[in-house]
Amino acid sequence: MLLTLDLVGIFVFAVSGGLVAVRNQLDIFGVVSLAMATGLGGGVIRDVVIGAVPPPAIADWRYLLVPVIGGLVTFWLHPAVGRLEREINVFDAFGLGLFCVAGALKAQEYGLGPAPSAALGMVTGVGGGIIRDLLAGRIPVIFRHGELYAIPALAGAAIAATGAELGLAPGVILAPAALVTIGWRLLAVRRGWRVPAARQEPPAR
Amino acid sequence: MLLTLDLVGIFVFAVSGGLVAVRNQLDIFGVVSLAMATGLGGGVIRDVVIGAVPPPAIADWRYLLVPVIGGLVTFWLHPAVGRLEREINVFDAFGLGLFCVAGALKAQEYGLGPAPSAALGMVTGVGGGIIRDLLAGRIPVIFRHGELYAIPALAGAAIAATGAELGLAPGVILAPAALVTIGWRLLAVRRGWRVPAARQEPPAR
Amino acid sequence: MLLTLDLVGIFVFAVSGGLVAVRNQLDIFGVVSLAMATGLGGGVIRDVVIGAVPPPAIADWRYLLVPVIGGLVTFWLHPAVGRLEREINVFDAFGLGLFCVAGALKAQEYGLGPAPSAALGMVTGVGGGIIRDLLAGRIPVIFRHGELYAIPALAGAAIAATGAELGLAPGVILAPAALVTIGWRLLAVRRGWRVPAARQEPPAR
Repeated sequence: MLLTLDLVGIFVFAVSGGLVAVRNQLDIFGVVSLAMATGLGGGVIRDVVIGAVPPPAIADWRYLLVPVIGGLVTFWLHPAVGRLEREINVFDAFGLGLFCVAGALKAQEYGLGPAPSAALGMVTGVGGGIIRDLLAGRIPVIFRHGELYAIPALAGAAIAATGAELGLAPGVILAPAALVTIGWRLLAVRRGWRVPAARQEPPAR
Repeated sequence: MLLTLDLVGIFVFAVSGGLVAVRNQLDIFGVVSLAMATGLGGGVIRDVVIGAVPPPAIADWRYLLVPVIGGLVTFWLHPAVGRLEREINVFDAFGLGLFCVAGALKAQEYGLGPAPSAALGMVTGVGGGIIRDLLAGRIPVIFRHGELYAIPALAGAAIAATGAELGLAPGVILAPAALVTIGWRLLAVRRGWRVPAARQEPPAR
Repeated sequence: MLLTLDLVGIFVFAVSGGLVAVRNQLDIFGVVSLAMATGLGGGVIRDVVIGAVPPPAIADWRYLLVPVIGGLVTFWLHPAVGRLEREINVFDAFGLGLFCVAGALKAQEYGLGPAPSAALGMVTGVGGGIIRDLLAGRIPVIFRHGELYAIPALAGAAIAATGAELGLAPGVILAPAALVTIGWRLLAVRRGWRVPAARQEPPAR
C-alpha cells in the first residue's frame, strides 16, 4: 500500500520533470534523466544525508523503472500530458504530502530530532524539483514565484516529526500529517495564495 | 594497470572540464575546479550513494593530483589542447567505457542488483560531465543535443552488471563490456548518430 | 567557544546567501533556503564525503536555526544589511578561515591523509558559496573574477592538515592556520590582488 503510494508519487514527480525537459527541448535521454532526478532526487538526498545507503530509490529496480516510464510517457505523449496541468497539480500535491511525511518519519527512525526530521522531510518533498530546475538551467521555481509549496510541506513534515517524537505510531501519523500538506497546498493553488518576495527598493517611510 | 587506466580516464575528463572552463573565461582556480569536478565527480557520486566513503577519488592523493595537472595543462596550453578535439574525443570514449564498466562492477560489489548497478555505472561515466556543465552555467550537453553518449555507457555498464550477476570474474568482463561502449561511442561520433529530441509541436495528423 | 565561532561563521555565510537571493528577487522561502545552503553547504558536503552522517549541521537544531535567522534578518533588513558590505567581507574572511581549518582537522580525524584533508578543508570553506551561486542561477563567483579566495582557504587548510599530521594538537593549530587564511584574504581584498584568468586568444609572440 505504502509502496504503491510512493511509486505513484514518484511517477507524478517524474512527469513534472519530463514536462520541464520537453519544454526545454531536451533529447530523450535528457527527458528520462530529468524525470528520474525529479522523482527520486529528494529521497536520495535524504538517504545520503542520514546514512541510509544505498538508497532504496536506487537499490530497488521498481523505483528506477517507474520514473523511466514516467519520462518516456511524457516524451511521447507530452502534448496530451501537458494539457492535464490541473490534474497534475492535484497529484503533485498528493506526492508532496506523502514524500514530506514519509521523509520526516524516516529521518526520525534514523535517530534525528524533530526539527532536523521536519527539515529533511521538507527536503524529501521539494528536493527533486530543485534538482530538476538546476538541470534545466533555471533558478528553482519554488524560490522565485512566492508559490506556497515548501511551507505546507514543512508543516506536514513537522506534524509527523512531532507525532513520532511523542511516540505515536507512524501508521497513525501518516494520513493526518499528509492531509495537512495536501489540503493546504491545494487551497493555495485554488486561491492563489502567495508568500512575500524580497523588495529590491527600501520601503517608503 | 587498472589504476593507470583509471588515471588516464580522469586526466582526459579533466582536460574536457578545463576546456569548458577556459571557453567560459574562468580564472585559474575555476579551470582547476572544473577539471577536478569533471574528472572525479562521477566516481564520487557513485561512492557516496553506495556508501563507499571516503571515496578513493578523494582519499588517494594520486586521484587528486592527476586532474589538477590536467586543469593546469589546459589552462596554460589551451590553444594547443583545443586543437586536439578529435584525439580528445577518442580518449574520452575510452574514459567513458572504462568508467561506466568499473562503476557498474563496484556497485555490484557493494551488493546492488544488476539494474541499479548498470544505472550507477552509467552515472559514473556521465556524472562528471553533468557537474562540469552545471558549474559552467549551462544545461548538460548530454541532455540536449541528441548526442549518443549515455546510451553506449549504459550498454557497457549493463553488460558488466549482467556478467557479474552471472558470476563471471571482473577481469573477464571488463574489456569486452568497455569495448562495447567505446566502439559504439566512436561509431556514433564518426557517423553522426543521434537520439531523438522532444518535439515542441504535436505531430501533424 | 568553538561552537560559538562556528555559529558566527554560519551566520555570516547565511547573510551572504540571503543577499544574493534578495538581489535575484527570490521570495522569502528562496532567501531562507539560499541562506541555509550557503551557511551549511560546505560542511554538509565534507561530512557526506567522509562518512560523518548525519552531519551535525543537520542533526543539531542550533545549526539549522542560525542560518534561518540569518536569512530572515537579510530578507527584512536587506537595505541596511547590503550597506554593510565592508563589514561583511571582514566577517566572511573570519568564517572562511575558521571553516577551512576546522574542515581540514575533521577530515584528518576521519582518517584522511594531509592532501585530501587540505582539499576537503578548502571545500568546507568555499562549498557553501558555490551551492549558493548554483541555486541563484549563476556561475560560481569564485571561479570567475580572479578573486583571491580559495587559495588562502587552501593554504590555511594545508597548514592545519600538515600540523595534525605532525601530531600537533588541534587547539594549537587552529588559530595560526586560520589567521593565515584570514590575513591573506583580507590583504587580497584591500590590495585588490587577483589570480590570472584564461586568455581566449593565444598570446602574441
